[in-house]
Amino acid sequence: MAKQPKNAISPTRAENYPEWYQEVIKASDLSENSEVRGCMVIKPWGYNIWENMQRILDQMFKDTGHVNAYFPLFIPLSYFEKEAEHVDGFAKECAVVTHHRLEPNAQGGLEPAGKLEEPLVVRPTSEMIIGASYAKWVQSWRDLPILINQWANVVRWEMRTRMFLRTAEFLWQEGHTAHATEQEAREETNTMLDVYADFAEEYLAIPVIKGEKPPHERFPGADVTLTIEAMMQDRKALQSGTSHFLGQNFSKAMGIKFQDENSIEQYAWTTSWGVSTRLIGGLIMAHSDDDGLVLPPKIAPKQIVILPIFKNDADREKVLDWCKKLEKELRAITWNDRRLEVLIDKSDIRGKNWVHIKKGVPIRLEVGPRDIANDSVFMGRRDKGAKEKQSITKDEFIKSVPSILEDIQSGLLEKAKQFQRENTRKIDSWEEFESYFTPKNKNQPEIHGGFALCHWHDDPIVEEKLKAIKVTMRCIPLDTEAEEGICIFTGKPSKKRVIFAKAY
Amino acid sequence: MAKQPKNAISPTRAENYPEWYQEVIKASDLSENSEVRGCMVIKPWGYNIWENMQRILDQMFKDTGHVNAYFPLFIPLSYFEKEAEHVDGFAKECAVVTHHRLEPNAQGGLEPAGKLEEPLVVRPTSEMIIGASYAKWVQSWRDLPILINQWANVVRWEMRTRMFLRTAEFLWQEGHTAHATEQEAREETNTMLDVYADFAEEYLAIPVIKGEKPPHERFPGADVTLTIEAMMQDRKALQSGTSHFLGQNFSKAMGIKFQDENSIEQYAWTTSWGVSTRLIGGLIMAHSDDDGLVLPPKIAPKQIVILPIFKNDADREKVLDWCKKLEKELRAITWNDRRLEVLIDKSDIRGKNWVHIKKGVPIRLEVGPRDIANDSVFMGRRDKGAKEKQSITKDEFIKSVPSILEDIQSGLLEKAKQFQRENTRKIDSWEEFESYFTPKNKNQPEIHGGFALCHWHDDPIVEEKLKAIKVTMRCIPLDTEAEEGICIFTGKPSKKRVIFAKAY
Repeated sequence: MAKQPKNAISPTRAENYPEWYQEVIKASDLSENSEVRGCMVIKPWGYNIWENMQRILDQMFKDTGHVNAYFPLFIPLSYFEKEAEHVDGFAKECAVVTHHRLEPNAQGGLEPAGKLEEPLVVRPTSEMIIGASYAKWVQSWRDLPILINQWANVVRWEMRTRMFLRTAEFLWQEGHTAHATEQEAREETNTMLDVYADFAEEYLAIPVIKGEKPPHERFPGADVTLTIEAMMQDRKALQSGTSHFLGQNFSKAMGIKFQDENSIEQYAWTTSWGVSTRLIGGLIMAHSDDDGLVLPPKIAPKQIVILPIFKNDADREKVLDWCKKLEKELRAITWNDRRLEVLIDKSDIRGKNWVHIKKGVPIRLEVGPRDIANDSVFMGRRDKGAKEKQSITKDEFIKSVPSILEDIQSGLLEKAKQFQRENTRKIDSWEEFESYFTPKNKNQPEIHGGFALCHWHDDPIVEEKLKAIKVTMRCIPLDTEAEEGICIFTGKPSKKRVIFAKAY
Repeated sequence: MAKQPKNAISPTRAENYPEWYQEVIKASDLSENSEVRGCMVIKPWGYNIWENMQRILDQMFKDTGHVNAYFPLFIPLSYFEKEAEHVDGFAKECAVVTHHRLEPNAQGGLEPAGKLEEPLVVRPTSEMIIGASYAKWVQSWRDLPILINQWANVVRWEMRTRMFLRTAEFLWQEGHTAHATEQEAREETNTMLDVYADFAEEYLAIPVIKGEKPPHERFPGADVTLTIEAMMQDRKALQSGTSHFLGQNFSKAMGIKFQDENSIEQYAWTTSWGVSTRLIGGLIMAHSDDDGLVLPPKIAPKQIVILPIFKNDADREKVLDWCKKLEKELRAITWNDRRLEVLIDKSDIRGKNWVHIKKGVPIRLEVGPRDIANDSVFMGRRDKGAKEKQSITKDEFIKSVPSILEDIQSGLLEKAKQFQRENTRKIDSWEEFESYFTPKNKNQPEIHGGFALCHWHDDPIVEEKLKAIKVTMRCIPLDTEAEEGICIFTGKPSKKRVIFAKAY
């Protein structure tokens, strides 16, 4: 261990935040780029985090009355053309299937053959294809509401990709609901935003701001787009989940009509809402440090890793036996409604402690012959310094493990909340705004700014001014109070402060 | 109810088996065809069955040491060309992405634009793309074995599709493992076949025959393909899961090499294994009857449906209250390591009993004011006739519900086993074989044949003779004893009986 550099990850966050991000992913073995442009391979440790997200969210969706279903991967081109804004939003970045066969060519290779009559778009989102089904399913007000979620892969041909944050293919869930009344659809939109916000805070330990996107940032085809915005450690915002009130736009495009209680034909009101593997990117950037990944225990694939330490074969067997018994005792413990997930790392590589620091396991237990003699374990917590370890008797550890995990979980949330508070500022002049978002230090170009709460009047000039300094309006927060003020961009009157930030 | 036809499904199995199959799917609301060629929509009741299959299998995979990961949907065409047999097997039926944008055309519509330098194949299976990753991950014998599973959608451009059994897009899991030794890879292939067979019998109540496919029926690129074969109620075989020993074919194609313990470079030995939403088709055809779907309780989305019966609003409230309490009590019961799943159907449509018969819910409980007065429920079991109902006190029902479910589950398996036994025959002459597989009744063309156990010598003439009567060799069973005999097709010597059947 003596030769370990000061930090396990190089560069550090302060040195180069974007590279640090890539290095954390590599060091924690979450994922890697594939040779297919923009598509990543989600490796077992990364996928296990996604499985945990899926399990928790899926239960939250079911608890709010939703069921799962599955719709086709392919969308006929003609469906796509039915909603003008929607197609504008996605036409520039979609994978198109044009052939259904491969045939040998003159060069001895293969080439596409069997041209399709109508090209098929690989779903970038499923409003159109799901809407086509709903149009068939809905006849009467008795058929409503439809409350369906889908777990699926989607493809958006992004030009610049970054693992988890922006990839050509990504995994997500997309809820699609249809309602008899506008009010019910609006309530659904809000309910699901609350589910996302609760999930982010309670499980990912990421505080988020709930708000409404300005018109030009809405989902293509939506009347209202609600968002949860989180602050990363470089003070940039990450849009972490969205919930859209689609009005009757998609019902009109796809023909989702029903007879109401008075036998009058009406168009349904629809919503859609989604979160994706992007959340893993947010998780990395919200908590990790210069030693690697830091995982909140409620979302970690393993809460505890046991690290048997032995110098010879005689020790090895004795230590492993003891560790297996400990593992069994720990696995019997229920925390957060689940059995604890425990890993024993039996490898005899040097520095295996660091493997699990980099992977973000919340609690590490080193166990050597001396610990066994004392019936104790040598505990390291991922939320403390790598060398800040503590000897604790086995019995006491077993008794206190739920509260230790609780402490780590709440500590991470508290730290992230404090960071967000410290980097959120009310700003009342354009000069201060511009200066706030301008890097002060050339060596740390990423570390500046934060969330700015400013008065704002919806005007085209705002976007222009923002673009010049690469800042975006994140959202109109749902829960801030009305306050009379003056828009810092236009000098026009404003009734509420909204949030600005640089963003992913 | 009086006007109910004799059976809920028309046509019946005997009248027209393939149409009966489609009608059962429709009546039970499992899925429907979409307007995208060959792609189906899996509706909530069908998807819930798939979720249960996923949950159980996923645990079985994890219990046998596997972890999940996720690999790209797209496979570069050049990867595809690397294994000759593999590409031959899939080139004729794959969706090819050739463009990454849509642009307005002269007709005011959209057309594909942004041609890709290299076409991408939508994965029909992932040996090549996963192999490319394994080639990077494996350096030393210490990196082996790799035991990974993926839950994913795949696309095979089938010309004739049938819901669940054969669709262009389907959902599946694909395990892909790499090993240092041939023996270990062969053992893995067998272990996973056992997992599939156990799953089919224990959860789906479908008895299966484990066997090896003849060479011409192997997975393209495999050295050995093991299969589980099930008998449907039309006596046809359904290949329900396969496990492939891939030898070093794919490691050589993709370069999965490692240094062994003596520092000698070796190619890894790989396997792959999968089951798909096809299992839902098998589930339907194995157990369902002329009243609709029949579901084994261990895989049913709901084990119990409570049907409140009321004639007026005063009754309604009283009955619903009582039913909600009953629901709560039932949901507290653990069976098969899970809480019971219970549904209350509060609708006031006439004949709602039949809705749930058609959907295959194992136990129905009708509850009206008279039942409440007696503190009892009126129970119908899906494995008995629709009218064969029984009054039972609530307390007794709660006490006996686990054993009733057990009884339904084991009864379905026993019935399916008996059907398979009754329709499996040792045949020792070509004449008898031909007659066995020839329909006896023009009105019931589907109902004939079964499994034939015959002596067989591997010879091209066999395939020809079989093709003429649309029979296929299903497998060389793993657990039948050696027995000297004469091949019924060629007159040549044979050492073992193998299984023939018509098949899906």
